[in-house]
Amino acid sequence: MTTAAYSSLLAHTRRTATLGSIDALVSWDQETYLPPSGAAFRAEQMSLLAELTHTARTDNRVGEWLSACESDAALKPDPLAQANLRELRRDFDRATKLPTELVAEMAKVGSQSQEAWKHARANNDFKHFEPWLEKMFALMRKKAECYGWAAGGEVYDALLGEYEPGASAKEIEAVFTPLRGRLANLVARYAGAKNKPSDAVLSKLIPADKQHAFGQAVLKAIGFDFQAGRLDTTAHPFCSGMAPGDTRLTTRYRDEHFSDALYGSMHEAGHGMYEQGLPKDKYFGQPIADSISLGIHESQSRMWENFVGRSREFWVFALPLARQHFGDALPQTTVDELYRAVNTAKPSLIRVEADEATYNLHVMIRFELERALLRGDLKVKDLPGEWNKRYKDYLGIDVPSDAKGCMQDVHWSFGLVGYFPTYTLGNLYAGQFWEKINKDIPDLSSRMEKGDFAALKTWLNTSIHAHGKRYRAGELCQMLTGKPLSADPLLNHLQRKLDGVYGV
Amino acid sequence: MTTAAYSSLLAHTRRTATLGSIDALVSWDQETYLPPSGAAFRAEQMSLLAELTHTARTDNRVGEWLSACESDAALKPDPLAQANLRELRRDFDRATKLPTELVAEMAKVGSQSQEAWKHARANNDFKHFEPWLEKMFALMRKKAECYGWAAGGEVYDALLGEYEPGASAKEIEAVFTPLRGRLANLVARYAGAKNKPSDAVLSKLIPADKQHAFGQAVLKAIGFDFQAGRLDTTAHPFCSGMAPGDTRLTTRYRDEHFSDALYGSMHEAGHGMYEQGLPKDKYFGQPIADSISLGIHESQSRMWENFVGRSREFWVFALPLARQHFGDALPQTTVDELYRAVNTAKPSLIRVEADEATYNLHVMIRFELERALLRGDLKVKDLPGEWNKRYKDYLGIDVPSDAKGCMQDVHWSFGLVGYFPTYTLGNLYAGQFWEKINKDIPDLSSRMEKGDFAALKTWLNTSIHAHGKRYRAGELCQMLTGKPLSADPLLNHLQRKLDGVYGV
Repeated sequence: MTTAAYSSLLAHTRRTATLGSIDALVSWDQETYLPPSGAAFRAEQMSLLAELTHTARTDNRVGEWLSACESDAALKPDPLAQANLRELRRDFDRATKLPTELVAEMAKVGSQSQEAWKHARANNDFKHFEPWLEKMFALMRKKAECYGWAAGGEVYDALLGEYEPGASAKEIEAVFTPLRGRLANLVARYAGAKNKPSDAVLSKLIPADKQHAFGQAVLKAIGFDFQAGRLDTTAHPFCSGMAPGDTRLTTRYRDEHFSDALYGSMHEAGHGMYEQGLPKDKYFGQPIADSISLGIHESQSRMWENFVGRSREFWVFALPLARQHFGDALPQTTVDELYRAVNTAKPSLIRVEADEATYNLHVMIRFELERALLRGDLKVKDLPGEWNKRYKDYLGIDVPSDAKGCMQDVHWSFGLVGYFPTYTLGNLYAGQFWEKINKDIPDLSSRMEKGDFAALKTWLNTSIHAHGKRYRAGELCQMLTGKPLSADPLLNHLQRKLDGVYGV
Repeated sequence: MTTAAYSSLLAHTRRTATLGSIDALVSWDQETYLPPSGAAFRAEQMSLLAELTHTARTDNRVGEWLSACESDAALKPDPLAQANLRELRRDFDRATKLPTELVAEMAKVGSQSQEAWKHARANNDFKHFEPWLEKMFALMRKKAECYGWAAGGEVYDALLGEYEPGASAKEIEAVFTPLRGRLANLVARYAGAKNKPSDAVLSKLIPADKQHAFGQAVLKAIGFDFQAGRLDTTAHPFCSGMAPGDTRLTTRYRDEHFSDALYGSMHEAGHGMYEQGLPKDKYFGQPIADSISLGIHESQSRMWENFVGRSREFWVFALPLARQHFGDALPQTTVDELYRAVNTAKPSLIRVEADEATYNLHVMIRFELERALLRGDLKVKDLPGEWNKRYKDYLGIDVPSDAKGCMQDVHWSFGLVGYFPTYTLGNLYAGQFWEKINKDIPDLSSRMEKGDFAALKTWLNTSIHAHGKRYRAGELCQMLTGKPLSADPLLNHLQRKLDGVYGV
């Protein structure tokens, strides 16, 4: 079923992906082992790789091969080829729709704007940032117009599509709205609880090297393959599934509060096991060996971090292991104390420090505001006021400064718009998959207590990872759970767990 | 003084060098942190980078720019431009002289031949390796003929030029011959000494992490800049001056015999300080920011390893530092014991385990034999006999097997011919520079005892490193020391030191 054009297209795609994998390694090195004085030249290496990759992605021959393949009857019966062609066409069209000057301007203004944001945040000076944020949203609107969006959709969809192919603002709104209401209710419910959990038990002084050894043991137990991956230390944790057989995680250690590094590592390992589960050995460079979307990616990291890592069953398994590594630091701690400690839920100011439940409220505020800014329904100058109003409405808290308010995240400063909702989409998909998994593996709880995560990993491997980008996120969700994405499974999970923890 | 063609040429050269720097990082990662399962795909990344680099180096425009520059009167008065043009012309001509099929054949046969060598060495079966070695020397002759050599020279020069531009077999012979005779005499002299030093004091069990901390402290003291470099662990130590501000060393630790890792690290740091001293910040990608030759490179590593590291003065400084790191492992050791221990000199079978003095005899045997093989004066089938004869003649020892004889080194198996003499050239240059340095810095001994290596490093920086490839090795030697390269300084250094150590 292979035609000459299809072979050429796949060979070229693999070459482009190989360049991408080199770029990923160079980026990883920049965060891990690059000596400080090497930073200036590193930018030159990255820019050369970006140029080579862009040239490869926009090569005219890709368009010719695609046209030949799309009208090739021999490829029609092959669903994998059809999935590849659908996604490669989409990539090529998007890559060729942006004028070179716009790409250059976004890079230049984005970098200046990010500097302005740093300065403005440090000095709590929104006025300094305001003109830059205006420029960035104007550029993002231009970008969105180049991409275009489906009939009945809106400008936001064009940017969202970069991270969540096939999703629309309207669909997201339809799931987020009930989620927001019920979450706000839950927050109020636990605020009034008498028997609130404490996380004091997590504040132990544990040296980084012991935390690292414990983290590695946990990751090995849940199924991350260290023959095909690593765990290193960086300022900001990330996962890079950079190449076949090579998936690298990073985390960070604070001597206090060891659960931060643990959950950071489990989160990244969730991303990493998705990358390791993709059929890259066979199809590297083809969409059918690539992940579906950021939302589905995040569903994997959140599942291991929250649904597994913050379960009581996990601590039945992990407490003895922690004792092995931490020696005297956890002498009289019980499973229940740990379980309660890692499941405190209370409104807070900063998204990245928020708990499993309230985190989604932070995300929804950003989704609503960036959507309004992009449409023009909200002016940049009115952003701080709107931000603070929503933090009061949804989370019940007062924002003391723009630095800890609408300037807390770096994303918008360099044009990352349409990205935020994927965090909560990840939680929602994780919730819906988790519900189904527990039906398919009825004894999962008792398996987890024994440190047996193999059936869970196999389920994820065969149901999600093995397909690569063959299905869109919504399609996969429908196929696996029999329903479109809904807020109910996540809300049910949170309420069931937190009602227990808070005794309400 | 800059013309358009020269600007274009330099921009292209920088781009090519940037590709090379990416290749160097990817190679470094392969030896340090690559997970085992990533090895297969790594080959694909390396091959893409090799292809991109080759395409850039042989780009037709380079030839056009070079011709334009060579006839450009405006560039004539600029000695840096002239040095660049001389070297870039040489690189371009060499790169375009090899037919693509020959390059591919050398790569393919070289890889098969290396496999055959592994097998033959493991089974002490020279007959198995013989046909492959014949093929490799035939290919190397072809390669040499493509390159060509200067009038009055010989086929060997063409290959030697890859590693030691401007050098000839005849010149090397003229220096090696007296060296060989006097070294053989020295060896005999110490074999008869009554008060032989012992290296038993070096056989301490010291854990790798302590050795690593000590090694880093020594490297910091001698002047390796860790803001612009790193020290990691690999199976085989190396130095990669991969980019401006980024020079990476590796070493290996055995729990026993801590001096191995120490001298390995000092050796690589010598290479590393050369790389850090090159004017890459200003001229990266241009020959005037590149090292002169492997011989000069090796002179830097050998100087820090042997002339500094094996001096009594060094141990006056380093013993207290070693005690700080190794605690109780060196309680009653004295400076003199250590100094004598690291300066034992006795004939041995294996090159990489040889001492500072006899090492050169191993190298000279290889130079003589590979030169004879290339010329056709020696048949591959007669190699083992000739090898063993020379080990008896020069070193006075019997070779028990070809595995530990003519098959001990990997070099020839994949076509590294003309490379060996650079090891001894390095020792010779180091000796001649060292003599001059001690005239220019008369109190160097007392400085070293205090751990003050700054004046030495500055001398190397300004006299050697700063020039990049502006001068050829022989020219630099004449300029700095007033004499052409000679065996006397190295021999005088060895005899002065070893006479003391052996009490003869």
